Order: sequence, then structure tokens, then C-alpha cells
Amino acid sequence: MSSSFGKLFRISTWGESHGGGVGVTVDGCPPRLPLEASDIQVELDRRRPGQSDIVTPRKEEDRCEILSGVFQGKTLGTPIAILVRNTDARPEAYREMETAFRPSHADFTYQCKYGIRNWEGGGRSSARETIGRVAAGAIAAKVLRTICPALEIIAFVKSVQEITFHADLDLLSRETVEANPVRCPDPSVAARMIERIKSVREQGDSVGGIIECVVRGLPPGLGEPIFDRLEADLAKAMLSIPATKGFEIGSGFIGSLLLGSEHNDRFVIRDGEVRTTTNFSGGVQGGISNGEAIVFRTAFKPTATIAKKQATVTVTGEETELAARGRHDPCVLPRAVPVVEAMTALVLCDHLLRQRATDALPRTSDF
Amino acid sequence: MSSSFGKLFRISTWGESHGGGVGVTVDGCPPRLPLEASDIQVELDRRRPGQSDIVTPRKEEDRCEILSGVFQGKTLGTPIAILVRNTDARPEAYREMETAFRPSHADFTYQCKYGIRNWEGGGRSSARETIGRVAAGAIAAKVLRTICPALEIIAFVKSVQEITFHADLDLLSRETVEANPVRCPDPSVAARMIERIKSVREQGDSVGGIIECVVRGLPPGLGEPIFDRLEADLAKAMLSIPATKGFEIGSGFIGSLLLGSEHNDRFVIRDGEVRTTTNFSGGVQGGISNGEAIVFRTAFKPTATIAKKQATVTVTGEETELAARGRHDPCVLPRAVPVVEAMTALVLCDHLLRQRATDALPRTSDF
Amino acid sequence: MSSSFGKLFRISTWGESHGGGVGVTVDGCPPRLPLEASDIQVELDRRRPGQSDIVTPRKEEDRCEILSGVFQGKTLGTPIAILVRNTDARPEAYREMETAFRPSHADFTYQCKYGIRNWEGGGRSSARETIGRVAAGAIAAKVLRTICPALEIIAFVKSVQEITFHADLDLLSRETVEANPVRCPDPSVAARMIERIKSVREQGDSVGGIIECVVRGLPPGLGEPIFDRLEADLAKAMLSIPATKGFEIGSGFIGSLLLGSEHNDRFVIRDGEVRTTTNFSGGVQGGISNGEAIVFRTAFKPTATIAKKQATVTVTGEETELAARGRHDPCVLPRAVPVVEAMTALVLCDHLLRQRATDALPRTSDF
Amino acid sequence: MSSSFGKLFRISTWGESHGGGVGVTVDGCPPRLPLEASDIQVELDRRRPGQSDIVTPRKEEDRCEILSGVFQGKTLGTPIAILVRNTDARPEAYREMETAFRPSHADFTYQCKYGIRNWEGGGRSSARETIGRVAAGAIAAKVLRTICPALEIIAFVKSVQEITFHADLDLLSRETVEANPVRCPDPSVAARMIERIKSVREQGDSVGGIIECVVRGLPPGLGEPIFDRLEADLAKAMLSIPATKGFEIGSGFIGSLLLGSEHNDRFVIRDGEVRTTTNFSGGVQGGISNGEAIVFRTAFKPTATIAKKQATVTVTGEETELAARGRHDPCVLPRAVPVVEAMTALVLCDHLLRQRATDALPRTSDF
Repeated sequence: MSSSFGKLFRISTWGESHGGGVGVTVDGCPPRLPLEASDIQVELDRRRPGQSDIVTPRKEEDRCEILSGVFQGKTLGTPIAILVRNTDARPEAYREMETAFRPSHADFTYQCKYGIRNWEGGGRSSARETIGRVAAGAIAAKVLRTICPALEIIAFVKSVQEITFHADLDLLSRETVEANPVRCPDPSVAARMIERIKSVREQGDSVGGIIECVVRGLPPGLGEPIFDRLEADLAKAMLSIPATKGFEIGSGFIGSLLLGSEHNDRFVIRDGEVRTTTNFSGGVQGGISNGEAIVFRTAFKPTATIAKKQATVTVTGEETELAARGRHDPCVLPRAVPVVEAMTALVLCDHLLRQRATDALPRTSDF
Repeated sequence: MSSSFGKLFRISTWGESHGGGVGVTVDGCPPRLPLEASDIQVELDRRRPGQSDIVTPRKEEDRCEILSGVFQGKTLGTPIAILVRNTDARPEAYREMETAFRPSHADFTYQCKYGIRNWEGGGRSSARETIGRVAAGAIAAKVLRTICPALEIIAFVKSVQEITFHADLDLLSRETVEANPVRCPDPSVAARMIERIKSVREQGDSVGGIIECVVRGLPPGLGEPIFDRLEADLAKAMLSIPATKGFEIGSGFIGSLLLGSEHNDRFVIRDGEVRTTTNFSGGVQGGISNGEAIVFRTAFKPTATIAKKQATVTVTGEETELAARGRHDPCVLPRAVPVVEAMTALVLCDHLLRQRATDALPRTSDF
Repeated sequence: MSSSFGKLFRISTWGESHGGGVGVTVDGCPPRLPLEASDIQVELDRRRPGQSDIVTPRKEEDRCEILSGVFQGKTLGTPIAILVRNTDARPEAYREMETAFRPSHADFTYQCKYGIRNWEGGGRSSARETIGRVAAGAIAAKVLRTICPALEIIAFVKSVQEITFHADLDLLSRETVEANPVRCPDPSVAARMIERIKSVREQGDSVGGIIECVVRGLPPGLGEPIFDRLEADLAKAMLSIPATKGFEIGSGFIGSLLLGSEHNDRFVIRDGEVRTTTNFSGGVQGGISNGEAIVFRTAFKPTATIAKKQATVTVTGEETELAARGRHDPCVLPRAVPVVEAMTALVLCDHLLRQRATDALPRTSDF
Repeated sequence: MSSSFGKLFRISTWGESHGGGVGVTVDGCPPRLPLEASDIQVELDRRRPGQSDIVTPRKEEDRCEILSGVFQGKTLGTPIAILVRNTDARPEAYREMETAFRPSHADFTYQCKYGIRNWEGGGRSSARETIGRVAAGAIAAKVLRTICPALEIIAFVKSVQEITFHADLDLLSRETVEANPVRCPDPSVAARMIERIKSVREQGDSVGGIIECVVRGLPPGLGEPIFDRLEADLAKAMLSIPATKGFEIGSGFIGSLLLGSEHNDRFVIRDGEVRTTTNFSGGVQGGISNGEAIVFRTAFKPTATIAKKQATVTVTGEETELAARGRHDPCVLPRAVPVVEAMTALVLCDHLLRQRATDALPRTSDF
């Protein structure tokens, strides 16, 4: 069950970095949605290695094949299976990891849990698994746009270490995010981030940072109170991405410093609709969307696999040192942006379908 | 589905603050566990209103009744249903909320989602719902202690606004947490927090803060890679608690400032076991526990319902002002501590049972 | 998980026959449905003991209390918790069962599975558990009737042993079913069934039979291909009722004797709609409703608990004899009719909500 | 969700008969199980077309590829994805079905439900979907055999129309079942069945029948009371197989003719164990296995797709006639035998893992 996500728009990923490939099955996609492989490929291309000089130089093309669920360019309502073959496998680069655990990586805990692990390329714990999420997210985003044409999901790199971009969220666009390889919308901040990433890579080290995501145009009423609150499902979605250490929505941790009278978002009537004057809530109240922009941030730690030599232990319990030889990202954030967007689309699409089922009886009058 | 949590140790809560009562059903509790109502009551008493002069003075005793699943003092393996009657209901105190939406509360979004809402006492969005979680968490904790006798789950108030306690996590104990009504283990910091809470209450205002939770004695190997990572399920659990805005584990947001070489937790052999020299990971690597202490923090916003007059709108779309008359907590954190612990116990107990099922085949040799 | 049923309209039952009570929580009921306790009580009264002289004379009134989820006579969209207290408990009548296993009852298998069991009145394995199903089914039926006003679910006793009623399904009505205590629509067949039941009861024995259920007015398109086919979910629902041994839909087992050319239901256009000339399919093709009547049958074995003395063994492995002293039904079928209808309503309501979610995109043209 | 089955050992199938292929993902398989493609292929070969002269002559080899979840010949505990490419597609043979609905097939209901369908080869409703089930069932069977070495699952064709084999279940073996192409263990009955199948095929017609399945060596205690009873989950599993119309366990429908005193299975002590003298229960009591053989039967209707011309209607609502040109099985039962076994293995493996989780606390004494 651990490799499935969602209740109604439900995805299941599979695959190791050095096995036959990686993929995903999407069960619950509504029928009659126009869908082609290119709809998915465009997002995979944003995630793939080798797209710029600040990410891993691995050569994977990550070409996707839709194996089922689509007929004559439209979804059938049946499971959509998507396959991406592994091509640039170099297991020999991981040979040391057969015996030594990378510090802060999943090597040790997989061994504890399963008593076995695929040490080639990190196996299932490799970020290659997120290919399936990005592919499924591209489909979810298409469903969302069909039902809510105004919906936009835009994630971007807010910070790399202490280098931080303070966004005017109203001015954000996919274009400004994609305008540079680090996916920070401000060109000058982006330049500093790129410089930092290149610098730490040269030192055989790595850096982390924060990705912010904004959702505009989401109707009110999505999210289920109690356990499946919108922010709870978003938190789970974000913390399920490798290398994440934190999640906050709206005012987040800083919000804990304010008084209630400062933090409460006043309601007003604007253009005939109930709106708020501020958005400390981040678009969610009581677990349910309120029609304002959803705004949340996710913290990523620095990549665990680094070229610098580190103390560690072996599978047989001896102390040793390890310096990674694989071709690793010095900073996962630029390639994590489409993953954050994909997981967001998956959560929202699932809740959109759930709300359709919940709201099954006629509304005799507007509230 | 929105009111259920867990896969194998699965709870379902129900109830509104001013209906017949609130409760929970626990499905999946192993049989033969000694269990009495007093095991549950002791935790409900930590959560209930009126326990000190810094929380709401409502008079609910919150006496629980075990309706099923226990026979002659032991669990049967069948669902355990627990009922707590509502007793101190005063719907008239909520009369204004029939027509006006409290800013930053769930009134507006429930109305959008359902087209109907129980405005008495907040209905389902009331924190009374967490009674069911605390009751179920008490059972989960008992299961955990039976299987892992060394396990301890200790949450405490780390900060109220900027007043912050920097804990030495090794010295924490349930006793120091319970030694004062604000549930901050340091007496002098606690005194300042209490003073602050009383002060803002006098002003008709409210404050938020941060709760930290530490889990000691958890064996390695719990948590499922990919979507049901331990930190992802903890994040969802925490963000499902009312008034939460953020979650972080281990190094959290601050961890995004470090270099990989600083952040990686080196493995060493200590007392014959694989351990780490630091714990930036917060006890979880690759989604799976590594045997170190689990450490995470949850941010709570200031209570939305305040006595101060605030601008808002009515159900029929007119602008108005609202000053709450109910008996509300000026700071939810002291009473949220047992809720954080309960949700933590629920996540861990579920993963413990899942790991038993996963690890079904004999391990022919230690790794 | 074993005590929950349904994906979107999801129920969870709890309770033992001699504990604090029995009940159910319904999660996923759409909001704004008019609902009162009397809507539920009328169905519980059809199921309760003591309603006629051919069922157990136990005196339970089975009064239900709605604890949550309803406000001012309408559902809130939140979980609906329903409680029925146990009143006529006589544990002493079950004292022998503390040590001896009733043949063909659940005593032995519960002991194997759980290592503990509530032997008073059968505990969780008592048919009292079906109270929760009937209560939830009454709500499901109300949702169905609101969305599909033409829908009718009518179950009846088709046979008691070899005494069989061959129904003209078009003439069936709830009134003819309820016209006699055995719930067989034909008065003369019903009289023979009643005579048989009384006769076997006098001998300290019991009988079984077959219940047929007809659903009229169900729209086409409900049911999910592959695993959650309509007939698969109905089969599971029926075989989850105590004492059932078989399920068949449409032509059923007899259908295996026909040629394809005899068995295939020809399509014709009738009143502008695609209809079939025969209904060997029982209203379901490829797992999906086709608009014809759903027709299925469920076989019930004779009640296991009988007054006649039978050989058995004790908990400690000694051979012994057992004659039940409890007040047991000599034939469960009359009281099982509302349970069959309830489980049918639960399956259909769940699939109706699922279809709403599946069919989320606009149909640009009729097929 | 409709294409997934199981709670802990969970499979998800995907694929249409004329798309890129069909496949399955198995999530929840315990780690360290020896597994190779040949373990799966042997079962697929029992299911594939063209294996004898009484089944469809289609030429599919159905070669499986394990894409993930296995490393150096052992399972990793991660999802196992299996792919079988479609090779002998002839969409032109299905051209008429683009416009005309086959009587008693899924063409019409898929069109109702989805507003679109893949008419080539029946698309998702094709029995090719069961490839995924058989592949996953082979893995489940291996898990079961590892944990319960004595376990045997043997299905066989009990009847083709009225030609019936009355088995001595103690003498059954996989070898006698596999000794002839119709998979009926008695050579003379098998010969008559084969003759009948060939005869109806010559007439352009089809026949149905009954498959019986026996499980020996299952430990007591598997199955969850209430909704996930072992017989309920088996009933769902069987009725989810295409062309099934009925399910019965133990005494089944005939059991409804007996008296309780005749039907009850007396307990005795045999070889120090609690056993029963008869097995009308079919190995399940109160939803839980009792250690006796599980015995159940599944009714299959005659194949819907036949060469004989039949009246039907078109997608646009005109009456027409249709004679199928595809290469169809005149009788699905011989190839359904491995599907019945696979679904049985999936149900049992899932319940075995669930029981491990349920039985988490130490048993202080044997009961």
C-alpha cells in the first residue's frame, strides 16, 4: 500500500533506478479526457537529469510510453499505465554502497526494514521513483484544468541555503519560473543561487533550500474535515518527496508569533463574493479551501550523496569511509519543482473528485 | 472516509460539539490487551477543558464509556467503541455564528462545502472532535508499550509566541511536562508563557506557538518508503489537528541552510549497534525509522475565536462585526499536547502492525 | 478494517450482543438529506426479535439514537453515529458456551483467531451486529431514493427448505412481502413455511432457505469493471451476512446449463431506450448495471444454535455434548430480509457516489 | 480503485486486449522471497490461448517480464511490476463491434458508464485482464507455500453444462487436473466434456459450467469477522472473474434444504486437534477458517461472444444482427481454472498477512 496515493484519483508507482524501468498506474482518471504521451513528456523533461549544468549530468532521456487506458487520444476511464525504461544505468558506480551505508541516505534503513536492498543506484529509494509522480501529476493537472479552467499551480525555488527570493505571488507565472535553470523567478536571485550550487559542487558538497507553491483559481469547498484536510494531505504529499524535512502553509511557523487579532483573515464582500483581506490561512480554513490562493512551502535538506569522504559503517558492522562516485545533484531543488507541482495536482484532483461525490444531493438554494 | 485514520490500527471519530456526544471506534486493535476505561480517562483528563486557569473554563467532565471490544478487562480484537457525552452545551452562546462567519474559522468553508452546518459550538469543526483521537491514542500507546517496552512519546510546549524553551531532549520526562499547566518542562519559561497567555486573554485576544514531540525507544525499520513514509504520515497526522500551520522533522526548515557535509548524520558502531553521531534526520531516513529518537515540531496559529470585535460577513453576504461570546481557549497548546502524543501513537502503532505484516518471511540471517 | 464496508458511503459497525450496545457510524453520507431516527427505526423494527411467533422471543426493543451527523432534521455531511443499547441480556443462558464450542458456530474459530472471545450471547458473532447494517442501509436507501426516485429494493423469502415461491418479479411489492411474518409474498406458500418453521422449532431443530432480492429502477452505468463489479460487491455483501452459504445473480448456477445462444440477452429498442428481451444477466453485464432489474438470490443454512443435544468438544479439548438454552431463531430468513435489503442499498449507494466521481467530465454528446 | 484487490497483499491490474499490453503491480509482497519470471510463466502458460484444441486458437505467447521489485532472484519488498505485451492483435475482427453491442457482453454497459470504449478485442473487458491476476496469484501462492508448506490450492472443472464430475476431494491432485485439456480430473467425464465443447463450437455456440476449488492445509484463524469474512472475500474474488454468475461454499444452495441437526459439523478431537466429522461449513465458520478443507464452487455462464447470428442494436439505436468473427473460446472453464486458483491464492495470502498483524501480542497460553 505504501506505493499508492489518493483515494479516487489513485496512483501507484513502481520501479528501481537500475531495474527494468520505473512507472506508474493511474486508476480513477475520468473518461473522455484528451491525453497524449506528449502531455506527460513535457513535464518529465522538466524533471529529467541533464537538463542544465547545475543538475546531475546523467543521460536519461526518460521517454514515457502510455501502455493502457487511452484510446484514439482519449482516456477510457480504465487504468492508465505509463512506463519509462532505465537507460543510463551504471551499477559499478554504486559498488561501494553494496557494503557501506551512505550517511543520511536510505541504505541502512532499507536494510533494517527488508533484510535486503537493491544497492545499485539506490534502488527504490532513488529519486527516479518521482518520474511516476510527475507523469501522473501531468494527467491530474489536465483533469483539473478541464473542470476548473482558471486553476494554476506554480512552484518555484524560494531559497537555496540563505539566498532567498521574496515573491510577489500575484506576479508569478510558469514562464518566469522556467526562465532559468534553478527555477527561481527573480533573475538576480537565481544567478546567486546558481553560483552557490556550482561552488558547493566543486567542493564535493551539496545544498538544500525551500520550494514555495501557489495555487490560484481553486474553488472553495475542497478538502475533507478531520483527517483528510487539504493541508494535511498536502503535508503528507510534500513530506513523501525524498529529502524533505518540513512543510508549512500560509503563515506557517512564523504565524505562531502573531496574536489572533493580527492573524485572523477578515472576510469582506468583493465583486459579490466572500473573500478575505489577508491570507495568513494560506487558502485553507478548517481543512477546506476558501477560494483564496493556496500557498505553502516545503523544506529540502542538502543531498545526502556527496563526493566528500565521510565516516560511516559497513553492512557487517565495521567503521569505514565513503566518498560517492555516482553522478548526483548538488542541489535537488530545481528538479524537485515539477515534483512539488505534480504532488499538488494529485492532491487537488483527488479532492475535486471526492467533492463531486460528497455533494451528490441537489442544493435547493445558494447558501 | 475523511473521519478515519490508519491502515491496520484504524480509528474513526464522530460527533459534534453540541450533538449527542463525541466518540471513536478503533478497528484493528490486537486482542488480549488489558484495557479499562481508566487507561483512557487519564489521557482525556489531560485534554479536557477546565483543568487549569489558562484554558477554557467550560465544565465538561468528558467521562468515557467503552461500549464494545473489551471483555473481562481485555480487548477482544473486535472494534472498540468509545462514547463521551456532551454535557455543558450552551448553544445560545453561538447564536451570532448562525449568521456571521468567524474570521479564520471553519464556518465559511463548511457552509461552502456542505451547504449546511451545525453552528452550535462549531459543530464538527470543534476541537471536541479530538477527544476521540486522544481516547484512541491511549489504546495505541498501550499496544506500543506492550510490544516495545522502552518506547516513550513525550510532547511539550516548546514556544508560546516568541517565548521559547530549548530542550535537552535527553532530560525530558512526562513528569516535567506535567509539572505545570502550560506543559513546558522548564519552570521559568513556563511561568513566562502562563503570564503571556493570561495577559492576551484579558485583552480578548489569543496566541499560538510550537509543540515539539520526541519519541525514544522506537525500533528501526518502521515506515513505508514512498508515500507512507514515517515523516509523511506524521506530517499528515499533525496537520490534521485543528489550528496547525506547519510541521518539521529533525533539522526541519533550518536544515535547508546547511551543507550536505554538515547535515549528514555519520554512522558509528555504539554498543554493538549501528547508531548516528548526530540526529539532523530526526530519527527517520528514507521514510523509515533508524533507531534514533524521532523529533518533530508542529506550529499552531493563535485561536481564531476571540472576544475582540472583528469585521466579517454574514451568511447572506452583508458586512458585519463579530465578538465571540463562547468560552474559548486563549491558547490551544497546553491542551493540544496530549493530542499530538495521541496522533503520534496512532501513526507508530499502525506502522508497527504494518511492519509485522511486511516482515512475514523468516530472516535467514541478520543483515 | 474488517468492520467497515464501502468506499465512499462507508459504514463501520461495532458491538457485541452482551456488551454496552451495538451501533454503526456512516461516513460519506451526502449533506442536506432529511433524516430522523424514525426513518431508521422503521427498518430496525422489521429486523428486531419478538416481532412474531416464528422468530426468537427475545424482548429487545432496539431503539436507536442518532448521536451525530444530523442537525435540525438534515444530515451535515459529517459522520452519522447510531447507538442501540443492549437491554435483554441474559449471559447465564450462554454459560455452557464459555467452555463448549457450538457446532458450526463461530465459537471455535474466534477462539483460534483471537485467543479470547466474549461467549455471552455469541459476542461479536451474534446477528445483533446486523442492527448497524440495517440502520445504515436505511440511510443509504434514502440517499438512493432522493437521487433515483424510481428505485425500489425488495427482498423476500423465496424458499424455506424445499417449500419454494416462484415469484412473478413484476408483481412484487413491499406490501405483499410484509403481509405475513415469514416475508414470502404468496399467502399460501407463506402459510406452509410458517407451519414448517413452527414444526422444526418444536423438535428443537432449525431450517434454512433462500432469499431473493429484486432492484428496479436502477440506472445503467453503476459498478466498476474488474474487481469492484456490481455482482462482486453484492456477492461480498451477501456472503458477509451470518449463516449465508451461496450467492447467485440472474441465471445463476442454472445458467451454466444453457447454450450461449439461449443465455444471451438480446438488445432491442423499447420506448426509445436500449433494453433486453430476457434478463439472464440479472441486470449486470461486465460488472456494470444495464438498466434492467437486478435479481439475485442468497442461500442461508439452518441456524447453528439448536436446542437438540449435539456432540462437540470443550475449550480444553474434551469431548462433550451441548444443547443450547438461548432463545434462538429456528429460521433466520424472515429477519434477514431487511438485512439483505440494507446490504443491497449500501452497495448501490456506494456505487452511485462512485459513478458521480468517475463521470466528472462533461459528456459532449450522448453515446 | 476498481482495478485493485487486497488490503496488504494488494494487486493492481491494467491493460486492454489491443493496447500496449496488460500487466499487474503487486504491492505488499514480503521481501526475501525467491522469485523468477519462470515462477510466473508456468501459470500464465496454463491460462494462455492456443494451449489445446478446445480453446481459442489465438497465438498469444503471453511472455512476462518482471520490471521491478526483484533483485538477484529475491523480492525486495517493493512493488513488483509485471508486463505482458499484446502480440496477436487483430482489431479488424472486431470492426462490427465498433457500432453494434454484443448481447450479454460489456459493450453496452461500458458505453453507458464511460461514454467511450475501446471496441478492439473488448478492450478492458477482455479476459486478457486476468493475465495480471494469474501472474500475481503465482507470487501469492509462493508466499503461502513458504509460510504454510502444506497448503494446496486445487481448482478443476466440475461440470460443463449437465456433464458433472463428483469428486472425491481427498484424491484430488494438480496432476490429475492437468492430465487433460478440459481440466476435469476424471478421464471419462473429461472426454465427454471435450466432445460437448467441440460440438457446440461447430454450431457456432458456447457452453458454461462449474469450477470447484479445494484448499487443503490452511491453518485455522484466517478471515476477519463481519465484512471481510473469508467466504465473503472469496465470493467477491470469484464474482469478479468475467462470466461468473454464482458462488457457493460448503453445502451451498443445497445446504438450505437440510435441518440444523443435519447440517451442523460436529467437533471431535482427532490426533490431538479440534476437527469436524463433516464439512458442510466448507472450512469456514463465522467468517474464519477452521482448519478443514476450504471447498467452494463458481458458476460460469456460456461465453457471450458466439459465431451464431443474434439480434442486437447499434450505438446509434438501430436494430441489427451480429455474428462474431473473433477467435473466441467456446467454453471459458478450462482456461479459468488457473484464474480461480490465482484469485484464491490472492485472498488467502492477504488474509495470512492480515492475521499476522492482528495477532501482534504474545499469546500467554494456548487456548
